[in-house]
Amino acid sequence: MRISIIGSGNVATHMAAALKNAGHNIVQVYSRDMQNAALLAYHVKADAINDLQNISPETDLFIIAVKDDAIGRVAEQLAVYDKLIVHTSGATDMYALLAFTDRAGVLYPLQTFSKVKEVNFRQVPLCIEGADEAITKQIEELAQSISNNVYRVDSAQRKILHLAAVFACNFPNYLYEVARQLLNNNQLDFNLLRPLILETAEKVQERLPAQVQTGPAVRNDVGTMNNHLQLLTEQPHLQEIYRLLSQGIIKMDFSPPAHK
Amino acid sequence: MRISIIGSGNVATHMAAALKNAGHNIVQVYSRDMQNAALLAYHVKADAINDLQNISPETDLFIIAVKDDAIGRVAEQLAVYDKLIVHTSGATDMYALLAFTDRAGVLYPLQTFSKVKEVNFRQVPLCIEGADEAITKQIEELAQSISNNVYRVDSAQRKILHLAAVFACNFPNYLYEVARQLLNNNQLDFNLLRPLILETAEKVQERLPAQVQTGPAVRNDVGTMNNHLQLLTEQPHLQEIYRLLSQGIIKMDFSPPAHK
Repeated sequence: MRISIIGSGNVATHMAAALKNAGHNIVQVYSRDMQNAALLAYHVKADAINDLQNISPETDLFIIAVKDDAIGRVAEQLAVYDKLIVHTSGATDMYALLAFTDRAGVLYPLQTFSKVKEVNFRQVPLCIEGADEAITKQIEELAQSISNNVYRVDSAQRKILHLAAVFACNFPNYLYEVARQLLNNNQLDFNLLRPLILETAEKVQERLPAQVQTGPAVRNDVGTMNNHLQLLTEQPHLQEIYRLLSQGIIKMDFSPPAHK
Repeated sequence: MRISIIGSGNVATHMAAALKNAGHNIVQVYSRDMQNAALLAYHVKADAINDLQNISPETDLFIIAVKDDAIGRVAEQLAVYDKLIVHTSGATDMYALLAFTDRAGVLYPLQTFSKVKEVNFRQVPLCIEGADEAITKQIEELAQSISNNVYRVDSAQRKILHLAAVFACNFPNYLYEVARQLLNNNQLDFNLLRPLILETAEKVQERLPAQVQTGPAVRNDVGTMNNHLQLLTEQPHLQEIYRLLSQGIIKMDFSPPAHK
C-alpha cells in the first residue's frame, strides 16, 4: 500500500517504521517542522514536506498522527484528494473525519510510546474502525500486516477504552510516584520496589487482577490498615486515596467474569 | 549454614529453594500440615516435622515464615535453643522476636510470591535487620548468598516500605481490575490493556515515574477529564477515585528528587 504519514511524533514514528518493515511504501512524511519531517522520512525512505499544499495525491492512504485538536483542520485539507483517511487517536470520534469525507477510519494503537524505547509493534493492540464494511476490512488488513492484535472497536467503545487506560496506566504510574516519595522521605531506595512493580504487572498478563489481589485490604486486615493510615497522618490527600482504594478492594467482586 | 524453615507457604517455599541452591543445608521443614511439610522438605532434602516439639537443635538458624499473628508464639518455643532466629515479615517489628531472645533478626523478601510462578530469587530485594552489628553482618552474608539486592532496613523503615508496597502493588492491581470491569461492561477484551500495563511497569524500571507520567491529568486537559467523569456517572465510587488521583497528578512535583 502507498501511505503518507501526517505527523512526526511518537505514534507517527513507531507506526511508520512498522509499516515500512511490513513492506508498505511510505510516500511522504509531513511535519510543520521540516527537520522532524526529514528525520522520520529518512528512516522510512520517504519524501519530507512541511506544507500540506505540497502533499502528493499519489497515495492510497493518509494516516493522521497529530495532536487531537489539529485532526479536524488536517482532515479538511486532505479530504479534497478523495483518498482513504484514518486518524490514530483514542479520544477522538471517527466523526471528526466523517465531517469532511466518507472514506474515513481509525487506526488507534493502544500503547504508550516513547522515541527512546523500542516497542515490538507486532504485540501492540491496534483498534480499528471504518466508515463502512469495505473500509473496515481494508484497514483491518493493513493493521494485521503490522500487528498480531487487531480489534474492531467503535467510537463509543474507544472512549471507554481510553478511560480504562487511564485507570490501568496513568493512575498506577502516579501511585508508583507516591510510593517513591514515601521511600525517599525515609532514606529508602526506589530500587527496593521496582521488582515488585514489574512482577505485579507480569502477574496479570496471564491471570485476572481479582485472582491475584494481595495486601491488607483484601484480607480485611483492619489493624494493618489503621497502622498505615496513621503513618499518613500528615498527608491527608494520601490518606483519602488509601481509604478509597482499600474500600474498593474490600468490596471487590471475585466471581468469575463473563468476558476475560 | 545449617538452616531450619518454620512454615511451608509461598515465602518459605521460594526462600528454602534459594538457600538450598546456594549450597546451604536445610535441616528441617516444619508445618502444622505434615503433607505440606513433607512436600517442601522433599524438594530441599530436609526432614519434615509437624510438631515443634520435634525440632532439632542441630541447626544454626531458624527462619520463621508463618502468618504474622503466629510469629510470637513460634519464637517463644524456639527461643529455648538459643540459636539465631529471623522472621520474614514486612509488617512485623523485630521486637516480636526480641521479646524472647537476643539473637534475633529479620530477613524480609520484598516480592509477591505465588507457588505457580517461578521467581528469579537473585533479583528479589532482601531487607535485613539484626539485633546487633554481628548478627546483622551474619544475616547480610546469608542474604547476599541468595540475592544481589540486599538492603539494611530497620523496623521503622520497614513499616514505611510495607505501606509503599501497598501503593506500588496492591492499589495498581485493584485499578487493573477496575479497568477490566469497564472493558467487560462494554464487550471489550482485557487483552487490549495487558501490553499497556506491562509497558507502564517496565518504563519505571529505568526511569522515575514522574518523568514518564502521561494522560489527561498531567496535561491538565480539563475537557477529556470531564468526559471521563461523565462516563462514570453511574459509578460514583470510581468518579471519586478518578478525581482524587487526577488531583494528585495535577499537583505532582516534577523537580528532580534527592534520592533515586
